[in-house]
Amino acid sequence: MAIVLAVDLRGGDHGPKPIVEGIKRFLSETDDVEVLAYGLKGDAPYAEGVHRLFFRECSEEITANEKPTMAVRTKKNSTLVKAVEAVKAGEAYGVVSPGSTGAVLTAGYLLLGRIKGVKRPMLAVPMPTLTGEPFVFGDLGANADVRADFFPGFAILGRVYYEAMLSKENPSVYLLNIGEEEEKGKQVVKEARELLESYDWFGGYVEPHQVWEGGYEVVITDGFSGNVFLKTAEGVSHLVTGVLKEEIIKGGFLTKLGAFLLKGVLGKMKTRFDYKTYGGAPFLGVKGLVMKMHGRSDEVAVYSAMKVMYRLAKADIVGRIEEKIASGGE
Amino acid sequence: MAIVLAVDLRGGDHGPKPIVEGIKRFLSETDDVEVLAYGLKGDAPYAEGVHRLFFRECSEEITANEKPTMAVRTKKNSTLVKAVEAVKAGEAYGVVSPGSTGAVLTAGYLLLGRIKGVKRPMLAVPMPTLTGEPFVFGDLGANADVRADFFPGFAILGRVYYEAMLSKENPSVYLLNIGEEEEKGKQVVKEARELLESYDWFGGYVEPHQVWEGGYEVVITDGFSGNVFLKTAEGVSHLVTGVLKEEIIKGGFLTKLGAFLLKGVLGKMKTRFDYKTYGGAPFLGVKGLVMKMHGRSDEVAVYSAMKVMYRLAKADIVGRIEEKIASGGE
Repeated sequence: MAIVLAVDLRGGDHGPKPIVEGIKRFLSETDDVEVLAYGLKGDAPYAEGVHRLFFRECSEEITANEKPTMAVRTKKNSTLVKAVEAVKAGEAYGVVSPGSTGAVLTAGYLLLGRIKGVKRPMLAVPMPTLTGEPFVFGDLGANADVRADFFPGFAILGRVYYEAMLSKENPSVYLLNIGEEEEKGKQVVKEARELLESYDWFGGYVEPHQVWEGGYEVVITDGFSGNVFLKTAEGVSHLVTGVLKEEIIKGGFLTKLGAFLLKGVLGKMKTRFDYKTYGGAPFLGVKGLVMKMHGRSDEVAVYSAMKVMYRLAKADIVGRIEEKIASGGE
Repeated sequence: MAIVLAVDLRGGDHGPKPIVEGIKRFLSETDDVEVLAYGLKGDAPYAEGVHRLFFRECSEEITANEKPTMAVRTKKNSTLVKAVEAVKAGEAYGVVSPGSTGAVLTAGYLLLGRIKGVKRPMLAVPMPTLTGEPFVFGDLGANADVRADFFPGFAILGRVYYEAMLSKENPSVYLLNIGEEEEKGKQVVKEARELLESYDWFGGYVEPHQVWEGGYEVVITDGFSGNVFLKTAEGVSHLVTGVLKEEIIKGGFLTKLGAFLLKGVLGKMKTRFDYKTYGGAPFLGVKGLVMKMHGRSDEVAVYSAMKVMYRLAKADIVGRIEEKIASGGE
């Protein structure tokens, strides 16, 4: 039986066209998937004549500047709400949207609800390391304020995601902190550590500069620190390449020749840090697979996000989370 | 009258030798400074025969693995405690140590106490940007748990440091957050924003990926997020250069030639991100100038830290903080 995936064509920075292009590319490589694409009236022609792509017309969209809760509650016929409702109705296994993080999380949370036993769903993503083995990192910002008792749930969600995404069993979980000693860090982190100590798979604290070395499979933190971590990493990698570019422009002929010869290497480096490689971040712990992709997503990013969603659907990530949460993380 | 600065020769990863070398280099460029160097008996020969360098023998040292409060309280004759006491006694204007952050902050806090009106001292440092203009960033980790009413104090400390360090008046202060809209972020940040709104120089929220663009003079946050920010930036810049190096090693002759031609540029890039450029971070808000330098500090880093301390001493940063705090930040 075909896997059905829903895609919200609206809410992205570049409109529906690159999204449909990404879907087409993805569909051309798979034969057991159907895609439901939720767009506005004028978007229909993009999707026309594509095998296994079904266009669903909606009458409104949620834009980046709207207050999420209000928008999701009042715009019942928006592309985002309709796409998430397809998951709720069992028509689609999962949904991906380029809309604002707030709107996507709110729609997932309000329309699908939490999986029983999950205190707070979290947003997670794989991050690159020096060894090439990614680590799973969350929460990326769904929970700016946290309690210590949220953390065992975050850990279990991260573990299931790691297993489904990277096909490796029994990953260890580390708690992000600003020192390795027990007495270091803020109160909520120390309390979370105490709660996590009872699990075999808990590996202790890890610091933000260590995670890139590889070997830390799953790293969890509160949504505020997680978002600071993600955006700092993004900012610094841009800064480093920006400064490099600037120095090359200022340089003489030999510097420019050197840059030309290194073009392939610099390109490869970019790929390794590019969010497009994974395309999207799942909102783990709600009753259905909900993924947020970057607002700037282009064809490649959408294609990658679809591949990730396909993989997570095949692994039945929602069912796995239900099982693991029910068994208390064992 | 000469400015007197105290230096703790112990607690660093490479022993006292590179520290004394850094002091010598600094002294050779100034003629109105005297340095008091606190070391163990065997360290005396390094400092011998250097003009304006006075060796002070101590009988013990505080090592990296000791609990800070216990160590500072019981090791009364350690190099760190003696060096900080020189500031307390008015013998030296400031002190710099390569010891553990915990030990240096504890010694500063317990032995010197807070400046009247400062709720919590903070650790701050200048960070690089794409434009070349640095921004002042704190708290780097002195206050893992915070209350909203600490933030106006952090802002004033950051402003005074910016003015003394960069010789520019009236910088704006921004509050680190994970979104720009008022309703974004964690509770304590929203409350801090409300308190900061009453100051002319408050510029609002800034996100961790934006600060590198330049134009944000002073950026403040809680010590946990600040330490995550600092260590993520450090980790990612190592990761990017590590991956670049790895790709060059894997590459063929032309790639290696390209790397050779870009050597100067890559070196310049390293300098721009190197902590050695500023050498040390002051612990602002205690009654005296206390600076922490990196445990891995080599001659160049020590030299830079001495220059920063000299500059802050000349600007009488402690007196300026007292004034600004007394006048409520106006």
